[in-house]
Amino acid sequence: MRIALAQLNPTIGALTENKNRILDYYERAKTGEADVVVFTELSLSGYPPKDLLLYNDFVDREKEIISAKLLPLTAQKGPAIIIGASKREGGKLYNTAMLLEEGEIKSIHRKTLLPNYDVFDEQRYFTSVRERNVEMLGELPTAITICEDIWNDRDFFADPIYNVDPLETLFGQGARLLLNLSASPYNQGKHQLREELLPFLSKKYKSGVIYLNQVGGNDELIFDGSSLVYNDRGELIYRAAAFEEELFFVESDDLYKPAKVVYPPDQDDINTIYQSLRLGIKDYVSKTGFKKVVLGLSGGVDSAVVATLAADALGPENVFGIMMPSPYSSDHSVEDAVALAENIGMKYQIIPIDLPFNAYIDLLNANKEALGDLAEENLQARIRGNIVMHHSNRKGHLALATGNKSELAVGYCTLYGDMSGGLAVIADLPKMMVYELANHLNLIHKREIIPERTLNKPPSAELRPGQKDEDSLPPYSILDPILHYYIEDNLSSAAIIDKGFDRETVKKVIYMVDRSEFKRRQAAPGLRVTTRSFGVGRRMPIARSYDY
Amino acid sequence: MRIALAQLNPTIGALTENKNRILDYYERAKTGEADVVVFTELSLSGYPPKDLLLYNDFVDREKEIISAKLLPLTAQKGPAIIIGASKREGGKLYNTAMLLEEGEIKSIHRKTLLPNYDVFDEQRYFTSVRERNVEMLGELPTAITICEDIWNDRDFFADPIYNVDPLETLFGQGARLLLNLSASPYNQGKHQLREELLPFLSKKYKSGVIYLNQVGGNDELIFDGSSLVYNDRGELIYRAAAFEEELFFVESDDLYKPAKVVYPPDQDDINTIYQSLRLGIKDYVSKTGFKKVVLGLSGGVDSAVVATLAADALGPENVFGIMMPSPYSSDHSVEDAVALAENIGMKYQIIPIDLPFNAYIDLLNANKEALGDLAEENLQARIRGNIVMHHSNRKGHLALATGNKSELAVGYCTLYGDMSGGLAVIADLPKMMVYELANHLNLIHKREIIPERTLNKPPSAELRPGQKDEDSLPPYSILDPILHYYIEDNLSSAAIIDKGFDRETVKKVIYMVDRSEFKRRQAAPGLRVTTRSFGVGRRMPIARSYDY
Repeated sequence: MRIALAQLNPTIGALTENKNRILDYYERAKTGEADVVVFTELSLSGYPPKDLLLYNDFVDREKEIISAKLLPLTAQKGPAIIIGASKREGGKLYNTAMLLEEGEIKSIHRKTLLPNYDVFDEQRYFTSVRERNVEMLGELPTAITICEDIWNDRDFFADPIYNVDPLETLFGQGARLLLNLSASPYNQGKHQLREELLPFLSKKYKSGVIYLNQVGGNDELIFDGSSLVYNDRGELIYRAAAFEEELFFVESDDLYKPAKVVYPPDQDDINTIYQSLRLGIKDYVSKTGFKKVVLGLSGGVDSAVVATLAADALGPENVFGIMMPSPYSSDHSVEDAVALAENIGMKYQIIPIDLPFNAYIDLLNANKEALGDLAEENLQARIRGNIVMHHSNRKGHLALATGNKSELAVGYCTLYGDMSGGLAVIADLPKMMVYELANHLNLIHKREIIPERTLNKPPSAELRPGQKDEDSLPPYSILDPILHYYIEDNLSSAAIIDKGFDRETVKKVIYMVDRSEFKRRQAAPGLRVTTRSFGVGRRMPIARSYDY
Repeated sequence: MRIALAQLNPTIGALTENKNRILDYYERAKTGEADVVVFTELSLSGYPPKDLLLYNDFVDREKEIISAKLLPLTAQKGPAIIIGASKREGGKLYNTAMLLEEGEIKSIHRKTLLPNYDVFDEQRYFTSVRERNVEMLGELPTAITICEDIWNDRDFFADPIYNVDPLETLFGQGARLLLNLSASPYNQGKHQLREELLPFLSKKYKSGVIYLNQVGGNDELIFDGSSLVYNDRGELIYRAAAFEEELFFVESDDLYKPAKVVYPPDQDDINTIYQSLRLGIKDYVSKTGFKKVVLGLSGGVDSAVVATLAADALGPENVFGIMMPSPYSSDHSVEDAVALAENIGMKYQIIPIDLPFNAYIDLLNANKEALGDLAEENLQARIRGNIVMHHSNRKGHLALATGNKSELAVGYCTLYGDMSGGLAVIADLPKMMVYELANHLNLIHKREIIPERTLNKPPSAELRPGQKDEDSLPPYSILDPILHYYIEDNLSSAAIIDKGFDRETVKKVIYMVDRSEFKRRQAAPGLRVTTRSFGVGRRMPIARSYDY
């Protein structure tokens, strides 16, 4: 049996467009003489469709497309189809994999394990079904599963989340092939985890394993594809492209004999982060209907990294930079930003903010002199934000926010100022990782894109004379690990102090994180690359006490 | 048996402060000779604690307080306690009601039905438990239940959400009293629904019913209290205060005889909305540690209503208004805003925005003349937003955003401009309801607070000469019902058109709603009063297609 696997990049809600893409892949699979072609989880609606699922007509339209456009294909001696789709039955909604064969829906496989943690809300929409049945694909009794269904093995996980494992049911029925339709977003370590679990399952159940994953950026989430195929002895016999669409074929016979070539383990390093962000930008921009982006260039490392990523994602001709010096800007700020823009080959404009800043001072201060207080620091940031948004509104460019995770965590950023923008590209990258990525960007471009001075000068917001980040914050080499323990690992201050950090520093950092929730609530969506990003994956109250 | 019921207003996460409040109520209950005192769902942590529950030390601290501070009280011949608290057991977390008696945790009642729709995410945190046991309170076999547990009656609801009803279990065991610890936020129609369900349950099970509800504003959600007591024939024998804390007592004997006085059905009208928003402002401001608020006053009805509500919530001395006329402002804008401020008795300042606006024009336009495009309309709104935020930052006043639900729905508002602020007070009020509330405010103050001209002039953003809302939008009498059907009822465009609305209008409105998701993602939290508000209750993708 020849199985075609379509590693698709759907657009959320774009039923027609996604259907056309599915038809295109189907034709290619047919040309490739596939017996069956498999699509990813909820591939018609794209994953995650979120509250679009609460609109009955949306679910109805999905059903119509399957009936009217996909089923007939399989009636005409074309390959069968296995596709992820929602299905409503008696007021309940199910996340299913449907087998379409000979013009009929031959079987429906309803997802058992519905993730409802982190960024996932599947129990908001779907009903879980315990009953699972093996399906014959050609001669192979197959466990057709959906994403989370395979992530609860009691021998692999010390503390499984759910009290049922559909694989036990399906392999108890004699399954010999594990087929998984996924929409699993990338985060650091995810590649490694998958490449540990999947061969484990292959060996445990002596089964071939085909893991098919969605690709593409959808708001905060970046799906990496990287679909995987293992033979029945846990050897990796194919790995599909990362962060790109792909159609690939598997001969089922190959799943049950030793591999000719075993793929080495996947890299999951700063270059993976790079690829991830590049796709995240590209897809967010195109799926929101934009072509070009605009951002402020400060001469610092954050905006330099975002500009470089954007140029790599969209082409330098589609990235516009604005340098907005103030009287507090260092001499080299504009120089470094210009050097960056020239290195990238992007257009830019220098717009000093003195004129509006002085107008505000004249308007707001009795003696018409700047006081240099926090209100005026924020005002400068907001003037810059307004200039970027003005450009965005006038030219139709999407504004990119350039803040990093460390500053967003402690609130070292200005709401409606430097936080302005439609997408916060590096909002999930701690400052230390931003530097690592900056160096990596120079490395992969094989020349200096980000100027050396940008990499070497001490970080500063330049909102008052001589200001440095370290005046207000611990050094990032201390701050970032504390933030990691608090935000990604949910450790208490006591537990973090136990790891050897200074007590007062830890308390201060956590206080700053907690107090800044109101800023993050109004932040632009930020591309997710760690195991816990701000936004939908971390839901904190604003009006709360900090006494514990 | 004498039962004390504590209708508490906890602050989220404030374990110490909430504990002190609980101790205070306990003492009052003891003085009142109660046999048992009941507190609301998750009353130590406050509801909803959200991702604070993912911090193990938070849950541990809650447990310690129960052991160290509450249990000992009950050992000293004080009344027993029934309290809502989380409980971790073997890696799972439960939402429980605990009976503390004679210094011991006598029984633990784990919530069966965990709401995971709308604004609720309980399956993100808690594990559901089917097994339920009746508890003897004095001589009364009692069904101790938590909020959602009582909302799945198959005879009351045409389409129950869950496939299990804990009341069937508990009354099957012979319960004679239904006790419910709730944290149920107010929305329109909620009072009526409760006052239909609870007597229905009372009559169905021939049982006394005590429904105890949390009170207070917690971010978007406003809990109304309005606790209810029914005798075993469905007569309402007590209704606690709405939108206020209260300790009240019930003699269990009174639950099993005809009522001396039956309370009339609750009002659920524009005054309920008023009370709700007033408390929502008061609690958000105080629980975030502020005392005073600032807002822009345009002379329009939205800001007039927000200012009046804020003054009622906080006192006029704690509300500061800023009038920010531009060359496009009508003559009466400032006059009307000043009249409002004078009527309220609040302080205000007039800050024309010409100076910074002209500075931006000089800076950004080659010929130094205004173009009057959308970018410049937004710029005016953003200058106003910046001035309000400057005041907020300098004076430490919380900024209130004044946008209504209609404009937030269709995106007729400026991100980082008029959307600026820490709390969006009327973000869930359609424009027609804003007018209704404005008239109501004048009525309850028994004089003209909101000037008549503000109520009668056509709505305008005044960002270009002669601009009116109706230039860009359908009349609100058409727009608001379309929005209601689309947002609150999740109807498709076809279904809305079927209700008699113009096809093109409906399509245009829905297109505007869908296209504005990126603005709402960055909006301030908005107080919720309808059955579906923007924010956590409506989770929509941004990067999506609109082709369906």
